[in-house]
Amino acid sequence: MTTKALIDQIHKKKSFLCIGLDTDLDKIPEHLLQEEDPIFSFNKAIIDATHHLCVAYKPNIAFYEAYGIKGWMALEKTITYLNAEYPEIFTIADAKRGDIGNTSTRYAKAFFEDLNFDSITIAPYMGKDSVEPFLAFEDKHTILLALTSNVGAYDYQTKKIDGVELYKEVLETSRHYEGSENLMYVVGATKAEYLAEIRKIIPDSFLLVPGVGAQGGSLKEVCTYGMTPSVGLLVNSSRGIIYASKDKDFASAAQNKARELQTQMSEELSKIE
Amino acid sequence: MTTKALIDQIHKKKSFLCIGLDTDLDKIPEHLLQEEDPIFSFNKAIIDATHHLCVAYKPNIAFYEAYGIKGWMALEKTITYLNAEYPEIFTIADAKRGDIGNTSTRYAKAFFEDLNFDSITIAPYMGKDSVEPFLAFEDKHTILLALTSNVGAYDYQTKKIDGVELYKEVLETSRHYEGSENLMYVVGATKAEYLAEIRKIIPDSFLLVPGVGAQGGSLKEVCTYGMTPSVGLLVNSSRGIIYASKDKDFASAAQNKARELQTQMSEELSKIE
Repeated sequence: MTTKALIDQIHKKKSFLCIGLDTDLDKIPEHLLQEEDPIFSFNKAIIDATHHLCVAYKPNIAFYEAYGIKGWMALEKTITYLNAEYPEIFTIADAKRGDIGNTSTRYAKAFFEDLNFDSITIAPYMGKDSVEPFLAFEDKHTILLALTSNVGAYDYQTKKIDGVELYKEVLETSRHYEGSENLMYVVGATKAEYLAEIRKIIPDSFLLVPGVGAQGGSLKEVCTYGMTPSVGLLVNSSRGIIYASKDKDFASAAQNKARELQTQMSEELSKIE
Repeated sequence: MTTKALIDQIHKKKSFLCIGLDTDLDKIPEHLLQEEDPIFSFNKAIIDATHHLCVAYKPNIAFYEAYGIKGWMALEKTITYLNAEYPEIFTIADAKRGDIGNTSTRYAKAFFEDLNFDSITIAPYMGKDSVEPFLAFEDKHTILLALTSNVGAYDYQTKKIDGVELYKEVLETSRHYEGSENLMYVVGATKAEYLAEIRKIIPDSFLLVPGVGAQGGSLKEVCTYGMTPSVGLLVNSSRGIIYASKDKDFASAAQNKARELQTQMSEELSKIE
């Protein structure tokens, strides 16, 4: 998907919501456990109930790998369903991969070609030649971890490297990677006060912002400091939406939670329209 | 597996060789492509021919994910075969994962419990709370990326963070993580000159050292600077061994290459015995 198509979708739906499909058999409604593929059944119901309120879905791959082959099958069915039924949706494989060059190419083919995700999250620790293989795919997006939403972000990411915080060094150097037009960045909503500084380095790039809701980040602050004239934000909520209810009404409860966020987003978008 | 069991195996086999199972359908002998599961058939033949010359196998998960469900099935069959037939072998899931706490726990369960690997490689960028969930598993080992073998290692890892190189900061801080006795580290053989400095920070920890052979690292240098009184090294070779021949003799060719390295390792081990 092109970035323009993503922006068009955002304006059409008045939403820059990404829903995290962190599907956990211990947390989904019990009646689904009798289905042949409970993970896919849950995802399908959530997607059908919320696709008009969000622009992106983000399965965290850990939740699928945790179930081995069955999990991988549920992941394949989920992305195939999304691409067939809702082709306007931007899909994110939250995989946080990264390896030496030829191995990164394997991951890129797996997620971009075979599974046909629009994007993947990548860890920057191994540097340029571990990231560039992902950037070589046209209209596919590489979402580099910059400043994550967890406490451990302060261990290395905010430490100064030759006088500049490591996350800023990642932003600055990656701008010059071959294919950098395909880069987006992860910046946690719990670090909203950093967004003004971040926008000085990457004024236009899209940011994937986790941490609103369960992790405590504020949507309003994220927009104040992070929104650009062409939006530039995908704000993710996972648990707060998909586990809004554990009963038979789980899909409509998820829809209500998604609508709450979409309504707030609509207000924020009106400020740049 | 306990570290003591690994060390005992090293002395018994006079080898600290790890063989990387980076199995690629484009590179394995053509006659195997007619088998029901060519990836597993290849791995099984390599393992049967080399298990007495090495102490560890390391499938890089990217190569399996690249084939989707079939790849995941081949990975499961490979680790099941290793655990059943050669339980003395130390197994490494080269996955380079790392995510926020509860998600890291999912990855840990997938690789340590369901697949029953002895260890996994982890990227440190997200800090302490992304690593500690892996350290909570008894007799399972977390191999943290410190200084990798690729060129991109110079982008961030060797840069100074408050006066100390980032990879040293990772070594130093991770020593104090809860469960740090389960930590090992990745240090590339192409950076052997750094090993003396590394040993000042982590005198006893095991290092997984990729990059000997195809990537240009020297076994002798790695041992000179990195070996400890209790060995402390697992040296990996992937392509140099498993793709020694593309013909029907591929397994015996791999055996010969493994024996070459094992013979050199035996000499190095004699210096500390």
